[in-house]
Amino acid sequence: MTIRPAIRSDEDAIWSIFHTVIARGDTYVFDAQMPREEALGYWLHPGTHTYVAESDGQVVGTYILKPNQPALGSHVANAAFMVLPTARGSGVGRRMGEHCLAEARRLGFRAMQFNFVVSTNEVAVRLWQQLGFQIVGTLPGAFRHSQLGFVDAYVMFRMLQSN
Amino acid sequence: MTIRPAIRSDEDAIWSIFHTVIARGDTYVFDAQMPREEALGYWLHPGTHTYVAESDGQVVGTYILKPNQPALGSHVANAAFMVLPTARGSGVGRRMGEHCLAEARRLGFRAMQFNFVVSTNEVAVRLWQQLGFQIVGTLPGAFRHSQLGFVDAYVMFRMLQSN
Repeated sequence: MTIRPAIRSDEDAIWSIFHTVIARGDTYVFDAQMPREEALGYWLHPGTHTYVAESDGQVVGTYILKPNQPALGSHVANAAFMVLPTARGSGVGRRMGEHCLAEARRLGFRAMQFNFVVSTNEVAVRLWQQLGFQIVGTLPGAFRHSQLGFVDAYVMFRMLQSN
Repeated sequence: MTIRPAIRSDEDAIWSIFHTVIARGDTYVFDAQMPREEALGYWLHPGTHTYVAESDGQVVGTYILKPNQPALGSHVANAAFMVLPTARGSGVGRRMGEHCLAEARRLGFRAMQFNFVVSTNEVAVRLWQQLGFQIVGTLPGAFRHSQLGFVDAYVMFRMLQSN
């Protein structure tokens, strides 16, 4: 598996993953009907670092890395990850997570924060805990899950530098 | 004191408050050099409800109210408040906070979340606690305070409906 910065010709593959993931309504807040151009405009926004994970020539995952806040909060990174459903369970998320932490350190971020990890997405919660994140906040009923109704979301955080 | 939706002719007053508040670097993440058009574009964004507090014909405060997330998270409101420094301590923030909670209920929001309350902004933290908000998360060192360096920020939350 190779992880590399996304290029223009990855757009079809990214949209395919993005659309499939948000259509489930179980992990991301985005409207399942979000148009392609809006989705790609968000995922490939200027100032956002966008990466893809490639396996046997196929894009099987994608992630973004950016400051979570402007100016006086820009030392804390934010990231988001999507894996092609058919590639789940093969370590794509973990590999991207490790890559993302290394990239964030390389870019000089002091910490990383996830603003909205759906509590019922247990695979993701466990993965981020294994990669050093802690649940630092719980948002009661903040996510309207397509199957389960209102469920909690977590704020997760980890430092990247010791000082 | 009157609190009402902002209109176009309030822009000068809003910018004056906004600019003065962010220049201090003690409560908001925005760059102190943020240009007027960018600031007004944010504060008066389509989909954002913008209000001003007027006292003796002068705008002494302003706040915004909007969904904190799109689609599957849009039932939780987010809000931000700014008070003219010379009007501090006169209850403008509290009046706007109470007005905001009433507006959020009227608009059908189920809860309200503040994503980034600077921990050293004790007046704000205390006010939101008095208005029913709880600290549901702590973001370690997430704010680079102009005087104090890296300080924590809080995520604060309150339900608006019992069901």
